[in-house]
Amino acid sequence: MSSERLLADFDAGKPAALARVVSIVENHRDGFEPILASLHGRTGRARRIGLTGPPGAGKSTITALLVKRFRDAGLRVGVIAVDPTSPFTGGALLGDRVRMENVALDPGVFIRSMATRGSLGGLAAATREVADVLDAFGFDRLLIETVGVGQSELDVARTADSTLLVLVPESGDSIQTLKAGVMEIADVFVVNKADRPGADRLRNDVELMLGLRKGVSFGNVPTHHGVDLKRMNPARAAREAAGEQNPSEWTPPVLSAVAVKQEGIDTILAALDRHFAYLERSGTLRTRRRERMRERVRDVVAQKVSDRLWKDQRTVAWLEEQLPAVEDGRVTPFAVADRLLRERAELVRGDEKT
Amino acid sequence: MSSERLLADFDAGKPAALARVVSIVENHRDGFEPILASLHGRTGRARRIGLTGPPGAGKSTITALLVKRFRDAGLRVGVIAVDPTSPFTGGALLGDRVRMENVALDPGVFIRSMATRGSLGGLAAATREVADVLDAFGFDRLLIETVGVGQSELDVARTADSTLLVLVPESGDSIQTLKAGVMEIADVFVVNKADRPGADRLRNDVELMLGLRKGVSFGNVPTHHGVDLKRMNPARAAREAAGEQNPSEWTPPVLSAVAVKQEGIDTILAALDRHFAYLERSGTLRTRRRERMRERVRDVVAQKVSDRLWKDQRTVAWLEEQLPAVEDGRVTPFAVADRLLRERAELVRGDEKT
Repeated sequence: MSSERLLADFDAGKPAALARVVSIVENHRDGFEPILASLHGRTGRARRIGLTGPPGAGKSTITALLVKRFRDAGLRVGVIAVDPTSPFTGGALLGDRVRMENVALDPGVFIRSMATRGSLGGLAAATREVADVLDAFGFDRLLIETVGVGQSELDVARTADSTLLVLVPESGDSIQTLKAGVMEIADVFVVNKADRPGADRLRNDVELMLGLRKGVSFGNVPTHHGVDLKRMNPARAAREAAGEQNPSEWTPPVLSAVAVKQEGIDTILAALDRHFAYLERSGTLRTRRRERMRERVRDVVAQKVSDRLWKDQRTVAWLEEQLPAVEDGRVTPFAVADRLLRERAELVRGDEKT
Repeated sequence: MSSERLLADFDAGKPAALARVVSIVENHRDGFEPILASLHGRTGRARRIGLTGPPGAGKSTITALLVKRFRDAGLRVGVIAVDPTSPFTGGALLGDRVRMENVALDPGVFIRSMATRGSLGGLAAATREVADVLDAFGFDRLLIETVGVGQSELDVARTADSTLLVLVPESGDSIQTLKAGVMEIADVFVVNKADRPGADRLRNDVELMLGLRKGVSFGNVPTHHGVDLKRMNPARAAREAAGEQNPSEWTPPVLSAVAVKQEGIDTILAALDRHFAYLERSGTLRTRRRERMRERVRDVVAQKVSDRLWKDQRTVAWLEEQLPAVEDGRVTPFAVADRLLRERAELVRGDEKT
């Protein structure tokens, strides 16, 4: 099928064209770039909601319930699952999977599990791109589900407008064991399985930590476990730098839910709406989206440089020739890289293409 | 302190100099590159052993026991902990932490928790660099502990010569829920807490899966959940491509351990020794280390390109000027990236420096 035809079908809202475009974009197949470029002007309408938390916290159940509520409200929903333990991507319980398959029969819902992409221009870049495709297709809400453990998953979560962190009592000392950045990124906390022992204590622990966090100026802790807080919340950092106290400061609510009994979903939806209103009112939405666009361009630059250098077989062959000397210790990786860039900067320029 | 003095102290084996050098390298502080370059010729001696598995599997306890055994054998041990749930990095049980602090008083042991680095040239690159520093300092064994969930953690595990995957019965359907790549990367499986119910079933499940895996030619499943199997085991892929059956093919053993009772550690050590002998005999060690060096050079290239472009304030300012048009949809990220590279390829060349 020609690219024009594919895009025409995409514009006409055909699900097969959507699936095809997502695959092309996700895997950077030939022609992905003009496709993304042609969709670019139509992005920016969907609200992007991240869900993260430890494996088994019930993220997928909550995702399924949110999908249902959004559908009931007449909204179209795209789901991007980057969680290896998610039923979307093949893990977890059969029950969940069946539940999601029902949802998947609805043409107003599109579900995509992300495979992983190489480390350069990795998972976060791929997620941003697929999210842009779904946004351009006309989905009103995008749910991006990640397991909040790895660094790349944290980067993925950071591509959302609002992030839900789902915790459960049985994670035990879970808030201690979660990577610090995971706590910092959450806009809304959900204590799921709140009917189980330990739920109150978990809520208290989270609230205590949030209280501590409120009292801590970013100026004093510019990075926490390597996570740059200023970059995570540039609006707040800017206000603090200016010595302002913003009355519309967002304090993440700590909600309770029992997702398997469908309890607590209304509260979560209300919190998401309040958070989105806050994002718009405070200018944070604009800041976050600009940051996303900035990252987007930097990703594209890195990807283009990598492609232009390494898809050239002469570069690959040249590196292979150098490797024995690098292994012997006669030459350092830095010297090889310097020489490579000195001799092959023309490739980076990409003159042939433009 | 001057760089010469620091390196002289490093060469003299002073722990303070080691800690300093590791910090400089990990955070890419000024002067990291000449330091790494000067150490480069001395790397390649240490055996690099990765430990991965789900949170709570007992990786840290096994790490501590391995450290003790290596020390008893007169070997010096470096530990790099990239596991957010590890006692090294602040999670897990007090008991573990106390045990590790005892180990940490031994000057023949160096423990380092990795903070996270930005997504470009991320965690795997940082781990490789810190491992090189420890290798050059003279450590005989490097233990690299990661939690086997995220993509970046998988990339980290892939920097080791041998990888232990630690599983526990209570992870339940854990082998289903683990990211596929985690299973594929393991050279030795350890079922820890083997005195608990479900251990036999878990062992059976793993062995079943390994049997299946053995029967599956890479030719038929070039990638599995986005993980490129050929790249993970290039020696095997090459043999298969040549239609050979290598009699020294490695079949990962599935071992049992009860780490808290110190049971099973000898078996693990023996398996690691056998695996290392196999790596040497089969040429896989050479292949893996060459692959590591190849990745190392590519990381350095990507990092240098990024630094040269984005540490130039004119590039940053130029991008900021373009962002409004990108946000409006008038210009695409691709067009901006193309223009940026066309106009600024000279920066990539890095002529000023050389």
